[in-house]
Amino acid sequence: MEPDPGQLPLRVGMVGYAFMGAAHSQGWRTAGRVFDLPRQPVLAVLCGRNATAVRAAADRHGWADVETDWRALVARDDIDLVDICTPGDSHAEIALAALAAGKHVLCEKPLANSVEEAEAMARAAETARARGRTAMVGFNYRRVPATALARRMVAAGRLGTLRHVRVSYLQDWLGDPEFPLTWRLRREAAGSGSLGDLGAHIVDLAQHLAGERLAGVSALTETFVRERPLPAAEGPGTGPVTVDDAALFTGRFTSGALATFEATRYATGRKNALRIELNGERGSLAFDLERLNELWFHDATGPGTEAGFRRILVTEPDHPYLDAWWPPGHGLGYEHTFVHQARDLVHTIAEGRRPDPSFADGLQVQRVLAAVEESAAKNSVYTPVPD
Amino acid sequence: MEPDPGQLPLRVGMVGYAFMGAAHSQGWRTAGRVFDLPRQPVLAVLCGRNATAVRAAADRHGWADVETDWRALVARDDIDLVDICTPGDSHAEIALAALAAGKHVLCEKPLANSVEEAEAMARAAETARARGRTAMVGFNYRRVPATALARRMVAAGRLGTLRHVRVSYLQDWLGDPEFPLTWRLRREAAGSGSLGDLGAHIVDLAQHLAGERLAGVSALTETFVRERPLPAAEGPGTGPVTVDDAALFTGRFTSGALATFEATRYATGRKNALRIELNGERGSLAFDLERLNELWFHDATGPGTEAGFRRILVTEPDHPYLDAWWPPGHGLGYEHTFVHQARDLVHTIAEGRRPDPSFADGLQVQRVLAAVEESAAKNSVYTPVPD
Amino acid sequence: MEPDPGQLPLRVGMVGYAFMGAAHSQGWRTAGRVFDLPRQPVLAVLCGRNATAVRAAADRHGWADVETDWRALVARDDIDLVDICTPGDSHAEIALAALAAGKHVLCEKPLANSVEEAEAMARAAETARARGRTAMVGFNYRRVPATALARRMVAAGRLGTLRHVRVSYLQDWLGDPEFPLTWRLRREAAGSGSLGDLGAHIVDLAQHLAGERLAGVSALTETFVRERPLPAAEGPGTGPVTVDDAALFTGRFTSGALATFEATRYATGRKNALRIELNGERGSLAFDLERLNELWFHDATGPGTEAGFRRILVTEPDHPYLDAWWPPGHGLGYEHTFVHQARDLVHTIAEGRRPDPSFADGLQVQRVLAAVEESAAKNSVYTPVPD
Amino acid sequence: MEPDPGQLPLRVGMVGYAFMGAAHSQGWRTAGRVFDLPRQPVLAVLCGRNATAVRAAADRHGWADVETDWRALVARDDIDLVDICTPGDSHAEIALAALAAGKHVLCEKPLANSVEEAEAMARAAETARARGRTAMVGFNYRRVPATALARRMVAAGRLGTLRHVRVSYLQDWLGDPEFPLTWRLRREAAGSGSLGDLGAHIVDLAQHLAGERLAGVSALTETFVRERPLPAAEGPGTGPVTVDDAALFTGRFTSGALATFEATRYATGRKNALRIELNGERGSLAFDLERLNELWFHDATGPGTEAGFRRILVTEPDHPYLDAWWPPGHGLGYEHTFVHQARDLVHTIAEGRRPDPSFADGLQVQRVLAAVEESAAKNSVYTPVPD
Repeated sequence: MEPDPGQLPLRVGMVGYAFMGAAHSQGWRTAGRVFDLPRQPVLAVLCGRNATAVRAAADRHGWADVETDWRALVARDDIDLVDICTPGDSHAEIALAALAAGKHVLCEKPLANSVEEAEAMARAAETARARGRTAMVGFNYRRVPATALARRMVAAGRLGTLRHVRVSYLQDWLGDPEFPLTWRLRREAAGSGSLGDLGAHIVDLAQHLAGERLAGVSALTETFVRERPLPAAEGPGTGPVTVDDAALFTGRFTSGALATFEATRYATGRKNALRIELNGERGSLAFDLERLNELWFHDATGPGTEAGFRRILVTEPDHPYLDAWWPPGHGLGYEHTFVHQARDLVHTIAEGRRPDPSFADGLQVQRVLAAVEESAAKNSVYTPVPD
Repeated sequence: MEPDPGQLPLRVGMVGYAFMGAAHSQGWRTAGRVFDLPRQPVLAVLCGRNATAVRAAADRHGWADVETDWRALVARDDIDLVDICTPGDSHAEIALAALAAGKHVLCEKPLANSVEEAEAMARAAETARARGRTAMVGFNYRRVPATALARRMVAAGRLGTLRHVRVSYLQDWLGDPEFPLTWRLRREAAGSGSLGDLGAHIVDLAQHLAGERLAGVSALTETFVRERPLPAAEGPGTGPVTVDDAALFTGRFTSGALATFEATRYATGRKNALRIELNGERGSLAFDLERLNELWFHDATGPGTEAGFRRILVTEPDHPYLDAWWPPGHGLGYEHTFVHQARDLVHTIAEGRRPDPSFADGLQVQRVLAAVEESAAKNSVYTPVPD
Repeated sequence: MEPDPGQLPLRVGMVGYAFMGAAHSQGWRTAGRVFDLPRQPVLAVLCGRNATAVRAAADRHGWADVETDWRALVARDDIDLVDICTPGDSHAEIALAALAAGKHVLCEKPLANSVEEAEAMARAAETARARGRTAMVGFNYRRVPATALARRMVAAGRLGTLRHVRVSYLQDWLGDPEFPLTWRLRREAAGSGSLGDLGAHIVDLAQHLAGERLAGVSALTETFVRERPLPAAEGPGTGPVTVDDAALFTGRFTSGALATFEATRYATGRKNALRIELNGERGSLAFDLERLNELWFHDATGPGTEAGFRRILVTEPDHPYLDAWWPPGHGLGYEHTFVHQARDLVHTIAEGRRPDPSFADGLQVQRVLAAVEESAAKNSVYTPVPD
Repeated sequence: MEPDPGQLPLRVGMVGYAFMGAAHSQGWRTAGRVFDLPRQPVLAVLCGRNATAVRAAADRHGWADVETDWRALVARDDIDLVDICTPGDSHAEIALAALAAGKHVLCEKPLANSVEEAEAMARAAETARARGRTAMVGFNYRRVPATALARRMVAAGRLGTLRHVRVSYLQDWLGDPEFPLTWRLRREAAGSGSLGDLGAHIVDLAQHLAGERLAGVSALTETFVRERPLPAAEGPGTGPVTVDDAALFTGRFTSGALATFEATRYATGRKNALRIELNGERGSLAFDLERLNELWFHDATGPGTEAGFRRILVTEPDHPYLDAWWPPGHGLGYEHTFVHQARDLVHTIAEGRRPDPSFADGLQVQRVLAAVEESAAKNSVYTPVPD
């Protein structure tokens, strides 16, 4: 939508332009074409260290200008929001500077590589909020229409007292032991392995859908392949994998409901299987990201003779986000979660609402991940998650 | 991508801005952001009869300029391609004028409301092709990665001699007899009902995947609810439904393979279930548009002990269109077919290749639909499809 | 159950002991062990032409005595019921003789190889009924708990006005052109091919579930492989296939609902896929024999936001036949349909009720099959089914 | 099959005639009718405490004689095998006596209510084996054709190095807090709750399919509803639930593969969902007892473009047990596992092979369950499973 004369633009500066950068670009570019927004996102500045590459990426994805130093980006007057799409080890520094400079911030998950960084970020976000600045963390899987519908149904009491949450995030791209030692397999850059990459998503989604927090966890982690070939750019030879390949944990929610979690990159044949099921006294819900337009619901309050898990095709106009899209049955894809994230963030900023998920939410997920690591290091002993 | 200095833009003028207009806009807007294209699409002019509405739509969807008369659009020098997204009764007139004016043309399906119109359009397209102009018909379901992969596998002989094709397109939005008498239920505007709307898609897709044409058909059609309330704008009262509600037909392919077709808007609970299965001597393929990221394949050439329909998640980099999108398992949606259509059309134009599907292909589908109507009118007698 | 002193046994004599004979044996042997029956079935006499083979089969399946001539079986005083499990060409002769001799009769489907035979059988059944004898035809797929539940739901009005029935029976064992020319591929023995073998089942099931009859049909049939190797016993060389390999037909129910049917042995990868879906104004039902413990139901009368096809696991105690079996979720198999058939037949006999399905029902199915063959022979012209 | 004159019968005496008794009866009655067996099972004596009830059950299920004291049964000379279908608290006593009396023994799972009992039983079985007596434990889920095929494929190396096993057994019959306090909810009778009932099955199946043992576990258990109404027979009022409602545990296999387990009776809508998935470097397998005729296999050694989980319909003649049953696609049910168990046990006895699973295997499962309980009692700390 061309900016309404009286409509304030929202000028975005984005740091990073790999996988997440491409997805966020699609989100910023499309949100205003599909939804009625109170402010119109503008793809203003793309930032990356390599001048040639960032220019090419900006042209490809439709960003007007470029910067090669995120400090310069943060310092610009013509930017309203900084969108952080870099690896986790730079999140804290960029976010703190951006908030200090009076920018709104969207930060990819996991919020940080440590609880300490995340605490600093959450404090800064709280301070910034007092000055009207919004800081949101990018747990985009809350914004699949099916998961958003699930949240709505849980909140409406359709499940009753919750008993079980079982959730897994299964990928298989590390199955081949010859896959090289990229940054994602190195603790100094990635913080952790499957745990931070996949586990952060499922911890957030499980707590979000359940509407409550984990009280404690018991965990096992493993690195199956401990030495991998160096990437071509780093010459021949091998190096050590310093992150977890897989993380399994059980836990208790504050209500007493039980949870199981599994995050792995070794589930041969599972490509992006984020699966979650919630069982309550009155009903159950199940979701699988590999079939993201579907939500399965079992209603235990009706006659048992006709009861069964039903496949709700989440494409009806009264389903979350769907009134702006296509007719029933015309499904959405992965990238739409970023369009919805952009939409929701614009509304949050324009309407001065609390961001959801906030940096405080990101910090709490970080605390769960830290408890998982602590439990794994202490012989799986049940480890409380601090408030 | 910002146009390369030496790169020719492809300036699009689009007529119509309802459902299809929104989908095509998304396609034109996104194709160059995702794929490397030889020419860069430009959303130049949007055309619609209501000046206010077309201006609002242009702003919403990102079109630079507007016209209120398609003749004016066709006459503009600064337009390279005319994209026709209107109801079927205006396709022929606009397409003929656009081709006469030296424009490339993309025309929504069904190509026309009659065989006669379609013949004129195919002739004009052939003439225009001699002058370097391309005319393509918008059978977008060929461009779902899963159907494109299916085509590739059939062409590679993975099914062997074809025996059966069964295909249905099931929707349910007419189940409620109080649904009003919109233009889609009136012969003068829509040409036909489920047959032209849904049947055209499945006839094209079945022939495209099979790699051969239907030799003849035997058909039943029915209008279940023959009188419906007038739309609110037309005042109270009811009017007659003058198109088919459902069309069922069987047929023979030229190779002798058998086919069954069903198109209906009364399949309660089926929202957009375009389903096709092909059985050959060496294997089978199955697809359902409600799960569009999946292709099911049964390989009958391996050991029977381990044989079974396998769910191929069509999201791998070597699957059609997928190298430009997201990592494995991160699915696409309905609208991506229009991005792929834009991509393929740009390549077709830039490389001077035969369009696929051409207007001649659209005409041939029209002939199948006409044979269906003829058979239905003649007590279902088997009716050959003229070459 | 050991016969209650006051409980009359039901002494069964069975003709034929191949596939169907084994299945019926299991049914007769098990019914009284699972259900409370008014009369206790006794596996009294097994009949087959080869004395050695029939003796071995009787020992294997638990029959007390044997005969080598069905006429001798029919003449025995110590037999109450004759169960006919032979190919179709001998059904009429045996059934007529058994009814004339005052026996109850269970006859495998299709009832006969021609309408004329079936008419004679239905007449004889009607006459016998006046004398307290029961004649039932073995459409066992009515007795899958899931199809029985479907019938109950349709009868209760859960679907409302019926619009569509789509049904197919897909197998693949003729895909290999080297499969030999068995009796099932010869018209003189089998009467027809897929049509009588598979088509008879789906015509009966569709009409039974819909609760109404087909008014007319339009059909295509085909023999893909017209010459096949002779069976080893008949020496080298090949012979002509004289039955249909596949039969496709559309039809109208008396209510105006539309139907599509497909029966084939060339659906590569489909092993026993008898699939039926019924769409009505208030709901839909779907079933697949390859997952026979499941019935899918879409309820269109509830809120659309939560609507979807639900998988009813038909294993609850209030589901048909299930109170006598296992706890919920502990599924049944194919052969249970024969246990249920035995149970229902014993009740029908003991209570003097009309058999369901009767020979008259079998005759009516035969008339549909004849109309299919007539339509196929007459260029697919729509052919009414006589009352 | 009538006993071959030279063929030794296998005279069975069974203790208990509730759910398991009915299932075992079906197994003993049917095995010799379907399979060629070296000895023919004879349903000789049924034993239960209530004379009237056991007589009625014997008549119903086809047992020739009855006893009301298991000691009398064990003392009979005309019994070859004692089949123990009672609750777990009597397994040890009966089995020890039966083995001492020179009988073969089949004992339902879990083998015992404590490791100590199980140890005594395993020792007795070892001693008895030296005298030619066989003792098997009834882990019937090894004998679903699909799980047996899975075992065969794992053993053949189709999965390569194993990375993950995830297994759950989900039922929902305790979801209603008004469900009464039956013996299954009392520790003194049942030993444990979901853990012994469902967990025993999945521990055995996981280890059996993986072909290796669990080295250690970390566990959480919970009793959601701690007070329930007394059964009607015990008068009004409520009593305490003294077993677990749910048990979750993670573990390590001896090879280093990771495992997750969940056993619960509160998974609303899941009726009998025993699900297991194994991921290896070369492939994956998945199974769900609610669809017991299917095994899903992902072959990671073929071309990735066509890879996907395939649904193997485990009904082909070369699948385990299937050559004796029905044609392809004609599925089996729950009770067939008991027919197969009877078949396998008869062969094991006749051929003097090691029983599989043996009492030693049952003991080892018991040790895993004990480690689960110990870990749960010790704050989930990782607890090794003794050899």
